[in-house]
Amino acid sequence: MITGFNREAVLDVIQSVLSREHGAVSLHEPSFNGNEWAYIKECLDTGWVSSVGGFVDRFETDLAAYTGVKRAVAVVNGTAALHICLLLAGIQADDEVLIPALTFIATANAVSYCGAIPHFIDCEERTLGVDPHKLAMYLEKITVQQADGCHNRRTGRRIKAVVPMHTFGHPVDLDPLLEVCRHFCIELIEDAAESLGSFYKGRHTGNWGRLSALSFNGNKIITTGGGGAVLTNDEELAERAKHLTTTAKVPHRWEFKHDMVAFNYRLPNINAALGCAQMEQMPGFLASKRRLSELYLAAFKGVAGISFVTEPAGASSNYWLNALLIDEEFVTERDNLLALTNNMGIMTRPAWTLMHRLPMFVESPCMDLSVAESLERRLINIPSSAFLGRDTYATS
Amino acid sequence: MITGFNREAVLDVIQSVLSREHGAVSLHEPSFNGNEWAYIKECLDTGWVSSVGGFVDRFETDLAAYTGVKRAVAVVNGTAALHICLLLAGIQADDEVLIPALTFIATANAVSYCGAIPHFIDCEERTLGVDPHKLAMYLEKITVQQADGCHNRRTGRRIKAVVPMHTFGHPVDLDPLLEVCRHFCIELIEDAAESLGSFYKGRHTGNWGRLSALSFNGNKIITTGGGGAVLTNDEELAERAKHLTTTAKVPHRWEFKHDMVAFNYRLPNINAALGCAQMEQMPGFLASKRRLSELYLAAFKGVAGISFVTEPAGASSNYWLNALLIDEEFVTERDNLLALTNNMGIMTRPAWTLMHRLPMFVESPCMDLSVAESLERRLINIPSSAFLGRDTYATS
Repeated sequence: MITGFNREAVLDVIQSVLSREHGAVSLHEPSFNGNEWAYIKECLDTGWVSSVGGFVDRFETDLAAYTGVKRAVAVVNGTAALHICLLLAGIQADDEVLIPALTFIATANAVSYCGAIPHFIDCEERTLGVDPHKLAMYLEKITVQQADGCHNRRTGRRIKAVVPMHTFGHPVDLDPLLEVCRHFCIELIEDAAESLGSFYKGRHTGNWGRLSALSFNGNKIITTGGGGAVLTNDEELAERAKHLTTTAKVPHRWEFKHDMVAFNYRLPNINAALGCAQMEQMPGFLASKRRLSELYLAAFKGVAGISFVTEPAGASSNYWLNALLIDEEFVTERDNLLALTNNMGIMTRPAWTLMHRLPMFVESPCMDLSVAESLERRLINIPSSAFLGRDTYATS
Repeated sequence: MITGFNREAVLDVIQSVLSREHGAVSLHEPSFNGNEWAYIKECLDTGWVSSVGGFVDRFETDLAAYTGVKRAVAVVNGTAALHICLLLAGIQADDEVLIPALTFIATANAVSYCGAIPHFIDCEERTLGVDPHKLAMYLEKITVQQADGCHNRRTGRRIKAVVPMHTFGHPVDLDPLLEVCRHFCIELIEDAAESLGSFYKGRHTGNWGRLSALSFNGNKIITTGGGGAVLTNDEELAERAKHLTTTAKVPHRWEFKHDMVAFNYRLPNINAALGCAQMEQMPGFLASKRRLSELYLAAFKGVAGISFVTEPAGASSNYWLNALLIDEEFVTERDNLLALTNNMGIMTRPAWTLMHRLPMFVESPCMDLSVAESLERRLINIPSSAFLGRDTYATS
């Protein structure tokens, strides 16, 4: 037993927060206590389950209203949303796109779909996301401005965009990051897949660059089964996003003409129906998740060798996925804690394997990733479903 | 008025078949009279709407059992299914893929996603699909065999595969086409997006090459909202299809590792639930659609200047989308007939604009397309929903 860290004690603390539950506890389960049935039944009764129907339009309007972004274009999942954002930002084959090494695979895959190369950058521990100051120092060293934008002096390739991801819902420090983007002529595209309901300095994440991506996968704060959205304040970009995600069909009463190679990324109406019902419950989901995070924070106070991750100053997080950080000296205990909790039916998981370690990206450029590497060794996600934070459930 | 063709008479005939209906009639509407509601309710009650849940497995098993193919891998739509088929067949950037000029845009787009070049080939009027004999003569002229396969002598590029599409459910003449594939060392990939329920010489379409694609879009014979499937008799290809469509995540209790650039193409469980309920109703859908085609066939007998398209000899079509062919001498009447019927609330449409005319494909290689061009001038689709063929609806 290592002094100062006791995995049984950590398990006890988690169990104390989840006290009323005795079965297995997932990392994140959706809640369907609103109009989900009513809206889906409306789809079935009218026959509008697919590419036509009012729920897609309504879901897009609801998302725009909630996030404060002018337009939302619903798509089939978050990966598709990222792909479209990158294409609309003008990412071309052989461009480099800066993305955090600590992210879900979708960010890197979307870059690859464009024929571009992910260039991995480091995080700061405070936000779990891109570190703007470290990035600025790095770009100062490795880039040179040319007629068509910022270039990597080492590879000769253009660095066209940076795609920060708001890890587990905690917003990246966007103001200094935007300053870096302006200084180096690099476009900001927010990967807001995990941060619906998260605000930075009072403005919603996904509302800071020209283009952003949301996800509504089954484990997200709201779900459409599978789904995502492109957010933009630019009407023309929104129209292009719609066109590009609906096979670029030119509107006509009966003719089938398409004017570019495009994608079948539209969200089916039945999935959008689920999204509309879920959006109505956002305030409740957010309150429950915040309550759960408060319970965890209180419970982990004073527990040796481990700390609970809280929202960065100046930001309001959706606390989508709660996380613990083990002190560096006890990282050898991480896998034991994962095994213990999962064996007890309490689902926990480590951070994603950092992108630069995956076989298809080992040749990709990267900066010093020491903070991401530390977070990778130390991070554990713990159960985070909204219903775990409801008063009737988690308090005595 | 052109002698021998009277658009008012054609409208009367269509209306006589649809006699009981007085509102607007779509081209194709789904029917939800089975267990759709029960299965979706099960998803909502259990919380399994997304990437985990039993309906995806069951839907795949149901599809395999129905089509007689060993394995089906459910995906997010037919375009995604085609994309995966092409990747698994080894299509590489700069390969050419033979596809009919008369097809929906998805076939050509999927080729483009691989960085390959669609090479457009002609149809025969009897099947509305690829003409194997004309193709053989063409390939004899333009190809040469090299170590890595069949090459186009004119472009120097490899011709790796042919993707016949079973137009409106009518099967392509597969036996001679397979002979062409064997002779020229070209892989057969069936685009069976429109032909679930269609058989060629007693064996289901999509069961003739190594890989085939299905679609369950809202207008298809069965629908999952949006959905598709890869069909294969090769277990190893099926495993690779599953891996490639689920972000290539390496199975592990908690680790997130991915071993290649892959796709988020999995079908959500809630959409698969719809598919399971729809599959149970396939026999009824097929019977209704066949009945509707018989009513149309009888009604159009003796109508001047136009004929109803029937299934090719040796094949059993699902009659997914019914079609009329106007005699060549009356093609100038096509748009008048489209306007008249659509203005009366009876949805009709022409063939898709041929692929080689679309701006992004005008530079693509193509053979003589005279039959496809004739079909494009003459073809009109007419209302085809299964419920229109039910005895209680369409007969007096």
